[in-house]
Formats: sequence, C-alpha cells, structure tokens
Amino acid sequence: MQLMHDVAALRRVVRDWQHSGQRVALVPTMGNLHDGHLSLVESAAVQAERVVVSVFVNPLQFGEGEDFDAYPRTLEDDCRRLDGRGADLVFAPGVDAMYPGGTGAATRVEPPAALVDTLCGRSRPGHFTGVATVVAKLFNLVGPDIAVFGRKDFQQLQVIRRMALDLNFPVQVHGCPIVREADGLAMSSRNAYLEPDERRRAPALYRALGVLVNAVRQGGRDVAALESRARAELEGAGLEPDYVSLRRPEDLAPPRGGERQLVVLGAARLGRTRLIDNIEFELTDGGSW
Amino acid sequence: MQLMHDVAALRRVVRDWQHSGQRVALVPTMGNLHDGHLSLVESAAVQAERVVVSVFVNPLQFGEGEDFDAYPRTLEDDCRRLDGRGADLVFAPGVDAMYPGGTGAATRVEPPAALVDTLCGRSRPGHFTGVATVVAKLFNLVGPDIAVFGRKDFQQLQVIRRMALDLNFPVQVHGCPIVREADGLAMSSRNAYLEPDERRRAPALYRALGVLVNAVRQGGRDVAALESRARAELEGAGLEPDYVSLRRPEDLAPPRGGERQLVVLGAARLGRTRLIDNIEFELTDGGSW
Repeated sequence: MQLMHDVAALRRVVRDWQHSGQRVALVPTMGNLHDGHLSLVESAAVQAERVVVSVFVNPLQFGEGEDFDAYPRTLEDDCRRLDGRGADLVFAPGVDAMYPGGTGAATRVEPPAALVDTLCGRSRPGHFTGVATVVAKLFNLVGPDIAVFGRKDFQQLQVIRRMALDLNFPVQVHGCPIVREADGLAMSSRNAYLEPDERRRAPALYRALGVLVNAVRQGGRDVAALESRARAELEGAGLEPDYVSLRRPEDLAPPRGGERQLVVLGAARLGRTRLIDNIEFELTDGGSW
Repeated sequence: MQLMHDVAALRRVVRDWQHSGQRVALVPTMGNLHDGHLSLVESAAVQAERVVVSVFVNPLQFGEGEDFDAYPRTLEDDCRRLDGRGADLVFAPGVDAMYPGGTGAATRVEPPAALVDTLCGRSRPGHFTGVATVVAKLFNLVGPDIAVFGRKDFQQLQVIRRMALDLNFPVQVHGCPIVREADGLAMSSRNAYLEPDERRRAPALYRALGVLVNAVRQGGRDVAALESRARAELEGAGLEPDYVSLRRPEDLAPPRGGERQLVVLGAARLGRTRLIDNIEFELTDGGSW
C-alpha cells in the first residue's frame, strides 16, 4: 500500500491503472478510521481492481464553532489499519494541494436547496456545499470510476449522488450499510468525543429511530406525533434532539402518499458531541404510506 | 470528422485516444460557427493531437427575456465549416444528455461573487453560474486535457480559469485572441442579429475601447472621466452603453496601483443585439497604473 501526498504522482498511478483496464474505486474519508470505514474499503475492493482511500479533513465543510481543530488527525494509525484491507493507495493531500486558489472566495459546488435546507443542513449552514465541493475536487484529482460512501451520512450520500448526476461526473456512486457497535450505536469518528457516561446513553438515538420505524410498519401515520414521541425518548435518555424526521429517501422530502421506501433520520447532541443516524426501510405486505 | 450525440460513445472514443497517448482538446461552442470559432479549433489542433468541438445551446446560461429561442441552431452548416479545419469530432448532445436530472433545481457550479457580480454579470444574473455549470459538465462528459475559449468573452474566460483551478479539474484552460472583422467589430454569433444600419455603427464599441486604451497609455488616470467619455462616444454612435470598465485581468477588480497588465471591457446594446468587446494591454516604458 502506497501513501501519497502529491497530486501529479497520484494522477500518474491512477491513469496507469485505468490504461491497463483496471477500475479504480475511491473511498473519501477524513481519516480517524474505524470499522465503518474499513467496511467501505472492503466493499470498494469487491467492486474495483484498485482502491484509493483519501484522507483529508476538509476545512470547507466545518462551520464556525464546529470541531475542525479538534477533529482527530491519525494518519499513521489510519495507514496501519488500512494495510491488508484492500486499499492500494492512501492519498493524503495538504490544504494547498486541495485548495490551490485558497479556501476563501472560490468556486463552489452548490447542491439543490431542497436537499440541503433541511435536516442536518438547517443546523450546519454551508456544510453540504463544502462536502459537494470537496468531493467534486476529489473526483477531479483522483479520477475514480467508482466512489464509495457510508449510508450513515445519508443526506450527504444523496447530495453526492445528485451532484454526480447533475454535473455528469463519470463516477458511479455507491452507498454502504451502516456499521454499528454491539449496542446499536452507529460507528463514527465523533464517538471518540463521548465521555463514558455519554457513550452508555448514545444508543438511545438508534433505539428511538427503531421505535418510530416499528410504529410506521404497524400502521402509524401521524408523523408529527411519531416524531414528537421519538424526540421525547431522546430527551428522556439525556440527549438534546436536533431533529427526527421521516422522509422519502430519493429527495429527502416528507412522504406525500403512496411511498413504500422510507427513511427516518435523526440528529441529537450529547454533551459536546453531535450524533446522527438513520434507518432505511420498506413497507411490506402491500403497504405504503 | 465524426458527429456524435451519445455520451457513452464519445467517452469510448476519447478514452481510446488518451490511452494511446494522444492529448485531447475541447472547444466548447453554442454552434453557429464563425471565423472566431475556427481560430479556436485551429489553436486547439496545434496544442493537442485530437480536437473535440462541442455544440450545445445551454438553456441554463440564458436569462428570462434573453435570446435562447432565437439563438441560431445551424449544426449541418457548422459541421461543413469545421471539416478540414482540424476538428476530429463534433459532440452535439441533446438537453437530456446534458441535464439528466433536469434543468430545474439541480446542483450548480457557483463562481466566486467578485468575478460574477460585475460587468456582464450585473445585467445577466445567473449567466456565469450557467456557464460554469455547463463547462464543468462538458469537462466531465468529454474529459479533455486542454480546453480552448475565446478572449472576446473575457469575463467568461476568467470564470472558467478560476473554476478549473478551484475545483482541481485536470484541464489546461487556454484563451485565444479575438478575431475581428475588417472594420474592427469582434466576431460573434450575435452579430447576425444586426440590421445593416446597426452593423455599420457596431465598430464604435471597439473604437471607444481603443480610445480609452490610448488615453491610459498616454498617462490618463482619471478612470471615471475616461469611462464616461467612452460611454458618450458609444451614445454618439447610437449605441446604448451597458458598461465600459478598466480592470485588472486576473481578478476583474479595478486597478489599485502598480498594475502593468490591464484590460478595458465594454458592453452595449444596438437595437435588439447586445455586443461585448475588450482590449487587453500592457503599460510599457516602465509605466504602471
């Protein structure tokens, strides 16, 4: 497994692979890799002959007062964890290579408002513009055939899918299932911020979403009441809910009738940590919304 | 010379060229080709082994009340004109291929405000976002090594240069000199809208810019007075000036002192036609702004 910081060298290697008929999958990460990331890498290795993992903590997707400075940088550990898991190359560019024109007043990739002025976008203004912009940059720098993202960041996945479609990127976007701890907590680099007591309470988010899913499966259709109950459960467990929302997966709009595929998404604060999670589900037995 | 409408077929051909070590230059056009376009194609053929000319009238860069419907579509003539001039492939996609997610609420490429909230951007809101978005799409569809644009659309060229830099596109952006009619009028597809009498008056735009350049070369530094005189000259010739502005070429900001490279840009209406032009110049003999 190679570690590269230089863009020109990276492009040469990737181009050589592609010229010899090998497909290249990119797994964009901000480092601090956990088993969730490793599952993305393993999925990438199944879909393509070559796997590039990028490690870059993107300043543009952090808002003021967010944890950009505190975000854990653990490149050596990350490389150790990746070794033997199917990654061929770790691309860890500096800020100058990623933002040759500076991070200030530069060209941005702006996702459609309907996808970003909702859910996490409401409390993180500019976040998804930062995500879409850096992913476009990584697509241009690496030139992958496939890009693999986790479904835990479901809104992010839909923003990126839409960007790849709308801007005609020749990249197939693939979303991988959420990897959870034994008690249900979705794996996340930010879980490292949790104090022991918070860590014990954190699975309440997944539990509250699961209760809502079961209620809908059993015919519950009063969205406001279901969401409100979920928020109350989170508060009862000592979490400060940001949102719990039932949506259509494809456009993140509330269900309007007739939907069979649904997703419930939730975000909550626990101390200084912001947790997100979601459950995608299908209404079976001929049921629909 | 091949004519292609299909994206997958185009990508195969371009990829084959690049795999065999040939560089590919893209000349994006809206068709209705004149000698100015042909000079772009000839320049592209000097810089790359293969030349793709795209022909697409991009709805996204036309504002309400602008000439999207009237814009001349002359694909057969365009292909005839291109034959033997160095183009290997004409790519003429349909709106569906260019906008697979629709032209409505889709992901946009947003250039920095300082480059677009000025000059033509003031009277054409959204225009440069439409340009940047469609050029990003063409870069992704064609995958060129080089892209060639005319310097007549100087603000557009700077927006695209900045986009390629900011989004790390692996594309070298090249600007070609303005091609003029014998009387100085910059060639443009929109010149076809001019009535005979308007056509006779149209070179006044280039003349007024030239007078301003000479005045600056001779030490004139009162920008407001120089611009105001140029506008008066345009009005005297029966044109309705939109702007005449002296700027720094790299960021389109007004000169602040010390500049040696300058550009004067102008736009004016003549009947139903909007004309633009510019002159780039250098202050010689040790002079600067």
